[in-house]
Amino acid sequence: MTIKISIDCMGGDHGPSVTIPAALSFLKQQPEAELILVGLEDVLRAELKKHHAASNARLSIRHASEVVAMDDPVEVALRRKKDSSMRVAVELVKDGSANACVSAGNTGALMAVSRYVLKTMAGVDRPAICSILPNQKNGPTYMLDLGANVDCEPHHLHQFAIMGSVLFSAMEGVARPTIGLLNVGTEEIKGNEVVKATALLLRADHERGALNFYGNVEGNDIFKGTANVVVCDGFVGNVTLKAIEGLSRFMKSVFKQSWLSMLGALIARGALKKLNPERYNGAGLLGLKGLVFKSHGGANAYAFEWALKRAFDAAKYNVQEQLSAMIADLMPDTPGAQRQG
Amino acid sequence: MTIKISIDCMGGDHGPSVTIPAALSFLKQQPEAELILVGLEDVLRAELKKHHAASNARLSIRHASEVVAMDDPVEVALRRKKDSSMRVAVELVKDGSANACVSAGNTGALMAVSRYVLKTMAGVDRPAICSILPNQKNGPTYMLDLGANVDCEPHHLHQFAIMGSVLFSAMEGVARPTIGLLNVGTEEIKGNEVVKATALLLRADHERGALNFYGNVEGNDIFKGTANVVVCDGFVGNVTLKAIEGLSRFMKSVFKQSWLSMLGALIARGALKKLNPERYNGAGLLGLKGLVFKSHGGANAYAFEWALKRAFDAAKYNVQEQLSAMIADLMPDTPGAQRQG
Repeated sequence: MTIKISIDCMGGDHGPSVTIPAALSFLKQQPEAELILVGLEDVLRAELKKHHAASNARLSIRHASEVVAMDDPVEVALRRKKDSSMRVAVELVKDGSANACVSAGNTGALMAVSRYVLKTMAGVDRPAICSILPNQKNGPTYMLDLGANVDCEPHHLHQFAIMGSVLFSAMEGVARPTIGLLNVGTEEIKGNEVVKATALLLRADHERGALNFYGNVEGNDIFKGTANVVVCDGFVGNVTLKAIEGLSRFMKSVFKQSWLSMLGALIARGALKKLNPERYNGAGLLGLKGLVFKSHGGANAYAFEWALKRAFDAAKYNVQEQLSAMIADLMPDTPGAQRQG
Repeated sequence: MTIKISIDCMGGDHGPSVTIPAALSFLKQQPEAELILVGLEDVLRAELKKHHAASNARLSIRHASEVVAMDDPVEVALRRKKDSSMRVAVELVKDGSANACVSAGNTGALMAVSRYVLKTMAGVDRPAICSILPNQKNGPTYMLDLGANVDCEPHHLHQFAIMGSVLFSAMEGVARPTIGLLNVGTEEIKGNEVVKATALLLRADHERGALNFYGNVEGNDIFKGTANVVVCDGFVGNVTLKAIEGLSRFMKSVFKQSWLSMLGALIARGALKKLNPERYNGAGLLGLKGLVFKSHGGANAYAFEWALKRAFDAAKYNVQEQLSAMIADLMPDTPGAQRQG
């Protein structure tokens, strides 16, 4: 089986100098993969040449004349740069040329372009961003939404839970992943009104065997690995994820302040690798009519390759079909199911 | 000038074995301090004896026959244990015997007991919990609310901003501390409805010179030290703080997994001390008619002493009077100002 991935090669802080070597390495690792490199053709060819590579049966180039900058407003990405590498990469998914696409471009633009080009899946009100974090059980914790939706109603969080469950199940090979609802305490009475109402929906799903709802989890449970999937609104998710990134960066800066602490960090690097966010790169934009994965903008080639691997796996394990099926099964009467055509 | 602090000596995971040595050490450091140790008299005397100390002119004992357990529901602390060390310590503030009180007991119980005993300050709708975090500029970032208020309206966040500004100013000796509003992006158009409406209130205060509103900040800005005070609702604050704690604990566990990484951590310990949460222990419960500080439940004696120092400083620098004055100045027409007697 061949899985085709379109890559926005111009996106991210580093563009082709990261995306091309990552693509070449992934192609070697994964004989079932076929990659479409999207971007300024000259630039891409030059970068391929640097690595003594050229396009071939499994590696094609699709020219796109524009680039969405990391600080471009969503409006610019959406309305003005209609031939951007980001947009063309997503359009390749839309027209069936690719099974999934990967971009390290700016998150807001990627989500807006993906929604515009692919449209939202039937039964889903709002697509969500699902990130992957390491935990103390040496497994991943999937967390969503990470910023696409700042004002959420219970049925939105309910849909996030379903989508997170499907993604975890397909990607990690776990039949009934546990779903935790992010809250300020574990007791049922804790939380704001939206979270309390969401818990009722998830508990009902749990009781009829549709979802494996663990219950409320707290911020520290993300890293404990208490539940496989942690559900929250995009405001909480975005702030939490950025706070975590901020702390990691702070720690790195502290290590760099003296040669002694750098030595310590060097000695402990084997252990620190466990915390390495590079392995966890590749967030899924879920709930669209097509698979889109977002790499961290600052990702290096190793990290970008992980995002490619995630997109590949999601296509291979039919995440899209499973999502549609589970949403149709659990959301027949939601406003979303009606609103979608 | 003498500052009197009442201490809930039974609170926290370790009780008197932490609170008593911390109190004794603080008393030596701070000749202006007078401490009232609250708890089971026999237990406190025995612990004092261990440290070859006894009550004296600056160190008195106030017997309280009950103890609020860390897992006691709020209701139990509030309605059943009326002679708890926590409650008596707060009552000593109420009746003027102490200028501030410190407890390492459970947060929900401490807030509920403090609200019940002291009542909310005029002009404040809801008290908030203000924690202190380290940042890359080697200064503290004050952050509130950390969990007392899960459903917030813009005027609540507005009040948190005022209270955080007063606390930072008094404690850190900064005339006009910068206030950041925690959001998913820095642009004005970003955020949920509550945050956008709050920004308007803070900007109006800024324009008439009342508050130094920096604008929106993101999760990573907490550790960058972009703004002195970070304002958010209690849901976001609680989840973020616990996620941060969770990541720290995860890292510690990773360091402990091999002797090599432990060696690395040992070598880097000087640097790691900068991140040490112990120095940042002591969260303020703001907006009550009296000063209450909360120590982390798991605090050791060194950390608990920091909480004592914070309570002492807050009383010494007249935080309470400054809070009342600024709230009266900026909140004359809020619903809260009317609701309070």
